[in-house]
Amino acid sequence: MLRTHTCGELRSSHIGQQVTMAGWVQKIRDKGGMIWVDVRDKYGITQLIFEEGKTDEKTLELARRVGREFVISATGEVVERVAKNDKIPTGDVEIRVKELTVLNESKTPPFIIDDETDGGEDLRAKYRYLDLRRGIVRKNLEMRHQLLQKTRAYLSDHLFTEVETPYLIKSTPEGARDFVVPSRMNPNQFYALPQSPQTFKQLLMVSGFDRYFQIVKCFRDEDLRADRQPEFTQIDCEMSFVTRKDILDTFEGLIKYLFKEVKGVDLGELPHISYADAMTKYGSDKPDLRFGMEFRELNDLTQGKGFVVFDSAELVVGINATGCGEYTRKELDGLTDFVKKPQIGAKGLVYVKCNEDGSFKSSVDKFYDQEALKSWAERLEASPGDLLLILAGEANKTRKALCELRLEMGSRLGLRDRSKFTAAWVVDFPLLEWDEDSQRYHAMHHPFTSPNPEDLDKLSTDPGSVRANAYDMVVNGVELGGGSIRIHDRTLQSQMFDALGFTKEEAQDQFGFLMSAFEYGAPPHGGIAFGFDRLCALFGGQDSIRDFIAFPKNTSGRDVMIDSPSLIDSAQLQELHLSLTKPAKSE
Amino acid sequence: MLRTHTCGELRSSHIGQQVTMAGWVQKIRDKGGMIWVDVRDKYGITQLIFEEGKTDEKTLELARRVGREFVISATGEVVERVAKNDKIPTGDVEIRVKELTVLNESKTPPFIIDDETDGGEDLRAKYRYLDLRRGIVRKNLEMRHQLLQKTRAYLSDHLFTEVETPYLIKSTPEGARDFVVPSRMNPNQFYALPQSPQTFKQLLMVSGFDRYFQIVKCFRDEDLRADRQPEFTQIDCEMSFVTRKDILDTFEGLIKYLFKEVKGVDLGELPHISYADAMTKYGSDKPDLRFGMEFRELNDLTQGKGFVVFDSAELVVGINATGCGEYTRKELDGLTDFVKKPQIGAKGLVYVKCNEDGSFKSSVDKFYDQEALKSWAERLEASPGDLLLILAGEANKTRKALCELRLEMGSRLGLRDRSKFTAAWVVDFPLLEWDEDSQRYHAMHHPFTSPNPEDLDKLSTDPGSVRANAYDMVVNGVELGGGSIRIHDRTLQSQMFDALGFTKEEAQDQFGFLMSAFEYGAPPHGGIAFGFDRLCALFGGQDSIRDFIAFPKNTSGRDVMIDSPSLIDSAQLQELHLSLTKPAKSE
Repeated sequence: MLRTHTCGELRSSHIGQQVTMAGWVQKIRDKGGMIWVDVRDKYGITQLIFEEGKTDEKTLELARRVGREFVISATGEVVERVAKNDKIPTGDVEIRVKELTVLNESKTPPFIIDDETDGGEDLRAKYRYLDLRRGIVRKNLEMRHQLLQKTRAYLSDHLFTEVETPYLIKSTPEGARDFVVPSRMNPNQFYALPQSPQTFKQLLMVSGFDRYFQIVKCFRDEDLRADRQPEFTQIDCEMSFVTRKDILDTFEGLIKYLFKEVKGVDLGELPHISYADAMTKYGSDKPDLRFGMEFRELNDLTQGKGFVVFDSAELVVGINATGCGEYTRKELDGLTDFVKKPQIGAKGLVYVKCNEDGSFKSSVDKFYDQEALKSWAERLEASPGDLLLILAGEANKTRKALCELRLEMGSRLGLRDRSKFTAAWVVDFPLLEWDEDSQRYHAMHHPFTSPNPEDLDKLSTDPGSVRANAYDMVVNGVELGGGSIRIHDRTLQSQMFDALGFTKEEAQDQFGFLMSAFEYGAPPHGGIAFGFDRLCALFGGQDSIRDFIAFPKNTSGRDVMIDSPSLIDSAQLQELHLSLTKPAKSE
Repeated sequence: MLRTHTCGELRSSHIGQQVTMAGWVQKIRDKGGMIWVDVRDKYGITQLIFEEGKTDEKTLELARRVGREFVISATGEVVERVAKNDKIPTGDVEIRVKELTVLNESKTPPFIIDDETDGGEDLRAKYRYLDLRRGIVRKNLEMRHQLLQKTRAYLSDHLFTEVETPYLIKSTPEGARDFVVPSRMNPNQFYALPQSPQTFKQLLMVSGFDRYFQIVKCFRDEDLRADRQPEFTQIDCEMSFVTRKDILDTFEGLIKYLFKEVKGVDLGELPHISYADAMTKYGSDKPDLRFGMEFRELNDLTQGKGFVVFDSAELVVGINATGCGEYTRKELDGLTDFVKKPQIGAKGLVYVKCNEDGSFKSSVDKFYDQEALKSWAERLEASPGDLLLILAGEANKTRKALCELRLEMGSRLGLRDRSKFTAAWVVDFPLLEWDEDSQRYHAMHHPFTSPNPEDLDKLSTDPGSVRANAYDMVVNGVELGGGSIRIHDRTLQSQMFDALGFTKEEAQDQFGFLMSAFEYGAPPHGGIAFGFDRLCALFGGQDSIRDFIAFPKNTSGRDVMIDSPSLIDSAQLQELHLSLTKPAKSE
């Protein structure tokens, strides 16, 4: 090694020792007769000292020439610092350097390499290798490393076998858009990159692997929203001979273990909330349960009093913003503007202030008397000083809008503390969703999800009302993972494809090998997948997954550091039997 | 769980307990009044017993209807077996079944699901999910699981950080052919799948990660030889502030740890062999060191005696096949045929039998007297009863042919025992290879490999003689891994690109981001990558990697189980701005 110690390990106990360390120049202070250089590596920062009279001229001169981010190696004696620095673990000592070597020079970096930086997002993306030098970014990835190791350890201990499934697989038109890979050896044919190893993990259950896991890259060619990546990592698992309870217990165990080991947080037992309840109480299948503020439906109390907005609404529903009764006109207008934003889409907001004197002041005083408003307040368990916020309209849209308002109020009231974690299982999802565009049902999870056994008879008569044997784990309003008990019976699988409007040929063409496999003794099985990037971001207390990925892509799917994707040469295209067509003008 | 116990865990101590197990029907013996059913899962096999009079009629009837590979669940009492089976761990007991459930039926499988099978390779590939049910195949993958976990544990313990590098990267014409992925959002541009994370791991060193590892899929679009896969797995590592010795020590440690933990084998200290020595002594840079049989050059002893084959040869070189002095004419002809095979390419074989009486009998007695033959035998340290085998011709070709002959003799003499493991480091490879086709030098490893510091001055004057600071680990004649100390200095990197005949523009275009990164303080660093599929096959004592991959592809790069690659629809092509060209007739 080009060092005897890292930059993070010297303490008072090392005083008097000869050491060599290597790293990057973090800071230089040149006071004429004395020069201090802070040298940094992954493990910490150590101060070097050069002093006229004590350090030889040549070394002193070299020390004067080093700049920020130079890579240096320094040999010398560990001495006690006069002015100790209790902010860093090595702050009691410094190295009186005898020998200094510049291992590599550095141009002046385009932004400051420190937790606080002057570099904008684009600049840091272009120089990601420098951004990754910053301690706060590297720490995210070190936590990711820890989560990777602990996850595998837990699953291995629980007899899961890690199996690597292939990346060059088959394209299927179902689901999101595939990335495809042209095959040179099989002209005009394409592989697809997996959106998930779903079919392979089910085949492994058919193969008798009993318990499978993999932490694996998956790919989706979707238009990228702010926090989506074309390639992402998931913890992918499957188990045989299990009921839903076994899966929930096992993976509740995993997530609790990770929280305990990595964050020191005890998650407690996870409540089970039905999809129907989650939608009714929070307007979302991934409710943030760090705070209450549950929805209360007010149709019975509000309709028939002549207020046409409520009277014509499918749903009138409200929340109680505790302690916000003193909101000013301006604040209330702000909330109205918030719900009227296009992405929220409400037409307006009705408020009721619960005054300290027991009276009420609302935006609909013209239509409702104090008695009526009081009944609303009672329904919403409001006390004097609280604020009721009420939306009305088409049920689903209104719930969705009120969900956003609830989250906004949660944030304003400081109820969404990033250091607090509240988890739950959401269960009993609908099996199918009606798609207006294609006028057919789509699988809400995927076509292999088993119906709830109690609802089996409704699959042909009333498919929309069938509940799935599916489950999501939700933490702090984030869907961390989800899965289902699978269909292991070919007859039921055929019924499912029928319900989804697949012809026999389509089903055979796309999933023939899985359906064939099911004819040879498929065991009852089920599984789950967790979004690993999301898990890391949650553990790191951040919303964006991007800072938890070493080399992320931007919202155009580009890696601006390596400038990819890029053109390829015509010989390569020819070998692949491809030619380029002109992109349409609109693009 | 649909079971209380697995099929592998019942022992005498369980006698009297009520248990439920689930699994696949392995075997049925129906003796009329008694029916035995062997039920199998991942963990083992347990015998179920059904008996007229003791088992109720309905259950008995159901037991008579189950077939091979049916998935069943059985509840009953653990009883002592009358005829114990000491070949399986559960052989002391059986289950007297009270309740039998068929969880899923099975068609008769297309081949026997057992270690010994009647299924041919193609059939098993098509029904890979059934092939994977066979214990010997599953055990390979369980060992793979174990190697995955132990490798990561060792590296984590040695402060390596696991970092996931991207799969959608940039195509480079250098090296093997890339698989490419058309970008929909960036029309006419392509990503490439990584042949290795080489540049990313070097960037991580520039980022100060100090030690990186990843067990990662890599991709090469090459014409597949028997034992190549288009996607393969490697253990990928990089370290900063190291010399070659640090890397060799660390990874010798890893491989020794794996052998000790997984195979119980102590590898001992690995010798270092120079590339030049390996070529001279074994004719290969990956010599099988389980046996000696070293080459001895005989030019000085053989030339100038009128035998034109030797006189005109650049190299005359032989091995001593110990104890083969009694080989018959037919056996010797067989060896001659072996070396004359086109893939070996020798023109002929000269032999010298060392008779028990101290005399010699050779195929060139016309040209050489006993004294001459004796001098050859002395050079080759032969004793009476040994056989000298000698080839002559152009040096490199002759060494290569003799290498094959040495391996063949090693196999015939039983010196290549699969349960014996002999490992070594091969070091000091040439930095560059001259390529006749393109009339330029190619990097023997890759363009980032550092020259041996002692040879730096020859890089511009005599590039062909420069040794690389590179190393391979070779076990039993298999190259298990390889790597190098990298160039961390931009000036040296430019010189290297010059030596490789890159223009400044080509270098900038392909590796610009890496070279830019090197301007901002790259630390001295180096790394290694191990072929993980190959490691698994070696541990499993087999030559082919295919049985150590869950879902391998055939030599046309096809997955015959899922029938991939396949055609994609025209809408998809249109979105990708691609059209198909007709493949050339010759294909």
